[in-house]
Amino acid sequence: MASLADIGMSAALNILSALIFLIVFAVLRLQPYNDRVYFPKWYLKGIRSSPTHSGNFIKKFVNLDCRTYLRFLNWMPAALRMPEPELIDHAGLDSAVYIRIYLLGLKIFAPIAVLAFGVLVPVNWTGGTLENSKDLTFSDIDKLSISNIQPGSERFWVHLAMAYVFTLWTYCVLYTEYKKIASMRLHFLASANRRPDQFTVLVRNVPPDPDESVSEHVGHFFSVNHHDHYLTHQVVYNANNLAKLVEKRKGLENWFIYYENKYNRNTNIRPTTKTGLFGLLGKSVDAIDYYKAAIEQLLKEEASERERIISDPNAIMPAAFVSFKTRWGAAVCAQTQQSSNPTLWLTDWAPEPRDVYWPNLAIPFVELTIRRLIMAVAIFFLTFFFMIPIAFVQSLANIEGFEKVFPLLRSLIETNLIKSFIQGFLPGIALKVFLILLPTILMTMSKIEGHTSLSTLDRRSASKYYLFLLVNVFLGSVITGTAFQQLNSFIHESANTIPVTVGMSIPMKATFFITYIMVDGWSGIAAEILRLKPLIIFHLKNTFLVKTEQDREQAMDPGSLEFASSEPRIQLYFLLGFVYYVITPIFLPFLLIFFGLSYVVFRHQIINVYTQEYESAAAFWPDVIRRVIIAMIISQLLLMGLMSTKHGSLTVPILVLPLLTIWFHIYCKSRFEPAFIKFPLQDAMVKDTLERATEPHLNLRAYLQDAYVHPDFHSEDVEHPMIIEEENNTLVPTIRTSRRSTPGESKYNSEVGSECEY
Amino acid sequence: MASLADIGMSAALNILSALIFLIVFAVLRLQPYNDRVYFPKWYLKGIRSSPTHSGNFIKKFVNLDCRTYLRFLNWMPAALRMPEPELIDHAGLDSAVYIRIYLLGLKIFAPIAVLAFGVLVPVNWTGGTLENSKDLTFSDIDKLSISNIQPGSERFWVHLAMAYVFTLWTYCVLYTEYKKIASMRLHFLASANRRPDQFTVLVRNVPPDPDESVSEHVGHFFSVNHHDHYLTHQVVYNANNLAKLVEKRKGLENWFIYYENKYNRNTNIRPTTKTGLFGLLGKSVDAIDYYKAAIEQLLKEEASERERIISDPNAIMPAAFVSFKTRWGAAVCAQTQQSSNPTLWLTDWAPEPRDVYWPNLAIPFVELTIRRLIMAVAIFFLTFFFMIPIAFVQSLANIEGFEKVFPLLRSLIETNLIKSFIQGFLPGIALKVFLILLPTILMTMSKIEGHTSLSTLDRRSASKYYLFLLVNVFLGSVITGTAFQQLNSFIHESANTIPVTVGMSIPMKATFFITYIMVDGWSGIAAEILRLKPLIIFHLKNTFLVKTEQDREQAMDPGSLEFASSEPRIQLYFLLGFVYYVITPIFLPFLLIFFGLSYVVFRHQIINVYTQEYESAAAFWPDVIRRVIIAMIISQLLLMGLMSTKHGSLTVPILVLPLLTIWFHIYCKSRFEPAFIKFPLQDAMVKDTLERATEPHLNLRAYLQDAYVHPDFHSEDVEHPMIIEEENNTLVPTIRTSRRSTPGESKYNSEVGSECEY
Repeated sequence: MASLADIGMSAALNILSALIFLIVFAVLRLQPYNDRVYFPKWYLKGIRSSPTHSGNFIKKFVNLDCRTYLRFLNWMPAALRMPEPELIDHAGLDSAVYIRIYLLGLKIFAPIAVLAFGVLVPVNWTGGTLENSKDLTFSDIDKLSISNIQPGSERFWVHLAMAYVFTLWTYCVLYTEYKKIASMRLHFLASANRRPDQFTVLVRNVPPDPDESVSEHVGHFFSVNHHDHYLTHQVVYNANNLAKLVEKRKGLENWFIYYENKYNRNTNIRPTTKTGLFGLLGKSVDAIDYYKAAIEQLLKEEASERERIISDPNAIMPAAFVSFKTRWGAAVCAQTQQSSNPTLWLTDWAPEPRDVYWPNLAIPFVELTIRRLIMAVAIFFLTFFFMIPIAFVQSLANIEGFEKVFPLLRSLIETNLIKSFIQGFLPGIALKVFLILLPTILMTMSKIEGHTSLSTLDRRSASKYYLFLLVNVFLGSVITGTAFQQLNSFIHESANTIPVTVGMSIPMKATFFITYIMVDGWSGIAAEILRLKPLIIFHLKNTFLVKTEQDREQAMDPGSLEFASSEPRIQLYFLLGFVYYVITPIFLPFLLIFFGLSYVVFRHQIINVYTQEYESAAAFWPDVIRRVIIAMIISQLLLMGLMSTKHGSLTVPILVLPLLTIWFHIYCKSRFEPAFIKFPLQDAMVKDTLERATEPHLNLRAYLQDAYVHPDFHSEDVEHPMIIEEENNTLVPTIRTSRRSTPGESKYNSEVGSECEY
Repeated sequence: MASLADIGMSAALNILSALIFLIVFAVLRLQPYNDRVYFPKWYLKGIRSSPTHSGNFIKKFVNLDCRTYLRFLNWMPAALRMPEPELIDHAGLDSAVYIRIYLLGLKIFAPIAVLAFGVLVPVNWTGGTLENSKDLTFSDIDKLSISNIQPGSERFWVHLAMAYVFTLWTYCVLYTEYKKIASMRLHFLASANRRPDQFTVLVRNVPPDPDESVSEHVGHFFSVNHHDHYLTHQVVYNANNLAKLVEKRKGLENWFIYYENKYNRNTNIRPTTKTGLFGLLGKSVDAIDYYKAAIEQLLKEEASERERIISDPNAIMPAAFVSFKTRWGAAVCAQTQQSSNPTLWLTDWAPEPRDVYWPNLAIPFVELTIRRLIMAVAIFFLTFFFMIPIAFVQSLANIEGFEKVFPLLRSLIETNLIKSFIQGFLPGIALKVFLILLPTILMTMSKIEGHTSLSTLDRRSASKYYLFLLVNVFLGSVITGTAFQQLNSFIHESANTIPVTVGMSIPMKATFFITYIMVDGWSGIAAEILRLKPLIIFHLKNTFLVKTEQDREQAMDPGSLEFASSEPRIQLYFLLGFVYYVITPIFLPFLLIFFGLSYVVFRHQIINVYTQEYESAAAFWPDVIRRVIIAMIISQLLLMGLMSTKHGSLTVPILVLPLLTIWFHIYCKSRFEPAFIKFPLQDAMVKDTLERATEPHLNLRAYLQDAYVHPDFHSEDVEHPMIIEEENNTLVPTIRTSRRSTPGESKYNSEVGSECEY
């Protein structure tokens, strides 16, 4: 076990690396040519314009003002300065609540750390067991931990009392925070501007009707059963083919503009391109004419595909977005059961238009349950047996496998350097590649489960990832061995020895997790703010690929909060905090630094960098609380296991804690969770009444008509033939809500738009 | 282990006792003086009148027509003859669905029994293990069971296949039955006459308002938030004191009528009574005058208590029954969240008026969660540690304890007979008394949990009782030892050895459970139809206590289906059936006889005897299915445990079964359960539209006004002062819905009613 000096050494190293990251960040972010990497959000908001347009040539790229370098940490107070209401306004409630998870960590663990250092550390330090028993190797860290107290000592009552105090304090913080977030959400929803999703319900599993089309059937059903409230509806088209065509056309349009610009700069030479692979092979043609013709061809294909979709009844999915005259009507429809067959006419709040995950809208009910069953089994196997395919790949990646596959390379492989590389590095790579791909795999699994909004997909992926981290990182580190071996030994162990086994090895792993928190937490967060990957990619793109202003906009990838992968990692730190707050209090300061640093960094990032893809109004918060509660219960069970080996009579009082925690969870859930699922009628009525008073002549039908059209049906500012075909529930174009609606694009669209009318 | 001959002997004995019960029943039910015991339902319906009023004296009491005795089983076809729709009409959907539980047993196990005897019995019989191994004692029963097959034999694949076939068949039956019951429920609700609960929602946790009374607050809230639909409401009064006074008055009224009748028969002597204890001590007074004065006094007290309740704001509970103009409006309100605080304005379907459990209406939300926490802990201790207090009582009930408490009785106790009685009998009595009291204890616990309707109370009690039976009867019999010892050994055993331990002892317990099913099932059901307890009590009351016709009505206790205690017992048989259908197929015929006999007996009982206290429209069915599913999963785990000792490679294919069962349950639940919880808007709209067309001038307000008044506020046909005080939500009297509203009572009420107006 590591001594205090070792830990200090490690801490110094990690602080140093974190500091280097921060200093590099401070320098890089001041350079104008990095401006789009570190402040993309302001560009997207249209507030900041490119600094390369003004000033002398050097100043465009390098910041020569030395004074700015002296205040290299001044982004920190700046990040903290923006008040929360403004932050919500600027970055959305999702982001604002996301960083409150770090704040939650600070609120829980800061007072606990003070108390633990005031009470538990002296009690442990003077325990004196380790000094007396000379046969044990021990370190200073252990002298501060519970290991320093003799089994059976009455001092454990202090730990018991502290466990209760800490738990109650955590309840307090969780309760007030849950309450706060719930009221923030309700306030956000109440003060939100008029949005289509407030009036709209997503209806799935519309039953087939022999006499009517889906659209007619939906219209009739809701005008009968919600006759005072139903306004209009939009059917959902299966537009996956169309999406491909649009994607292809956009690529060609970039090339078109690139060559046009090139020609404009030098009008003497008509630029040429080759028709073959990537413009490298084939015969040379005039580039501008070639791309113009290709785009026109694609536009025609798009138009005919659109017509096919509209005329083909099979392209209409049995789902629809139904809009109501009032928020009250929508709230009623979303919360009630429509038909006596509960698998038909499933109604639910419509997600925001940009939050909709279109491909999943048409999955029938039975298929949905089967998909979920299969995915539940798959996630179990993925969590516990993921090492098997990796070991298989690793075995392929050994020398003999390589030589078999590439016999020609044998002489090369036999070189010592390459041999050691393959043997020492490749197996690790297989695991690393898997871990990098893991969030994508989990997201794919969530998509297969059939959720209809991006926010739900994120939340479901986060749950899966948490399970994986819990089993493979936490348990895997505590009990060395693969998850499969653990599972095997757990099955063969008695139910009450599992917490004992795990609990006993917990104190010994404290130094490992302290190191983990410094490497993964501190340096990881400092690296996050540096945005090394986007920085490199932006400059690569900027140098080689950017042809148009629009391309530069797209090269500037602001990213977004990766809820699905980063939230479970925070939860791991919560778990570690709960596990160690009684056992090894020295753990807590490291945790607090992590939470504090993360809070500042992510606050800076959501202000300056990240752009949300959707706004779910903090719908993920109940998941966060649930996972914190799971972490508490696990820590309490482990504490019980450990205590049963130290002072048997304490087992029962500790057993009360998980029961209390479960009850607390049930209470909080019933108290606050409805605020995240349902929309109360009272609030809907207030907002409706207010709107009726302020805007009595609002044409809601026009407002809602085109809100839920498949994004690729928006043919940018052009009226479509389909308007004539369907009288009221038409699919007229609207202003794009996604961030790709850049000035360059829309300019171009208005140019070529008229072509697609025929 | 018992041989086939032993089982046959036991079967013969039990068949004999069952036959005796049936013959005694056949004889007794034909006697006119028992008519009110065996056909009370027809009396309550007013279809049958007392046979003692007509014919000669002997014939009034004894049936002398010998031919009727010959057809002593003819009640069986009679019970089966009534078609189901008529049965639902006659006895209600609850009862009709309840007996379908037995039908479900027949449907599941009859084809399985045929298949098991066709396939499994030959396979087992020719297994030949037991014959070859001479050191084992075995019986013919065992030769038919899985024990007769050599471990590792490939014959187990037949059992595996059969387990799959049986399971799939069970899914089939459960699915179709669930579907059938769901549609029966929806049809019942759709075709039901207008009932107050269709328009009414129970609102709980009305927040206090400084400026308004509860009634005003409720009125304003709903007229704002459901302004097109809200009709009227009734607040809930805390009328527990009043209920006591009314109870007392009713007793006095019986005496009053008794003495009046006595005086009418013999007008010479004014009857007298004594004012002291039970009319036995104290000075003699004129009985009629005395009781008349006492009743008048009580009526005055009642009136003042009513006034106190109405004028005292503390007597108004923060709950109300809110009625709507349409079923659609009520359905919307019941299914939606009203306020942004989900613990306020809790809305739920109002139970039927007679189904309301009034004392629980005012429990605040926080208290409710605490109560449920405490009860969850209590039910755990009751299930696993109930033997501790009983052992304590038993230890008190020994000779020494007795001699200490009653030193005077020492010489008597020392008598051998009494000594052996105390030692041999009293400890058993303590357990028996506990088991008799158990349903009451569980019901009390459910009441503490705070459910607001009698039907929910029954369902919750049934769940608790099922847990108790599962742990203490099933597991307790399989693994001898108390539940506490089992729990202890389970905790100390590894998780996967529990099914093995239990599974291995399953085949050995087959004969025990066959005997159990014959004693508890066959004879128990035959005893049920005899109604020995109500028979004796009726005749005792009739002889000693019946003074008036009203008393005779009350002495005639028709009883009702005791869902809370009898449904869990059926579930125990389902569990045994699933556990043994692969292991010991010989078990199945005994089970089938139980289900068949029960079905006929209970069909007879619900037609002729039982009267429902409420109608929940089969709301309990999801619970029934859930428990059947639990039984299936338990049986599959035990089969897996057993197979792992017989043929290890079969463990994995059997492991698939419980997973499949869980998935099947989730699917069925989402498919059908909403039909038992929610009321679809489409159906509500259809019924509303129909009603509007057929009865355009219906005064719904008048119809609903007095539906949800506390039963003791109905002052029988008398208008109360409170009508003047509260304008619209008044508490006007209505016709009593409970079965106690007999002609005698109402006659008397109209006589004295006018007195309570001042």
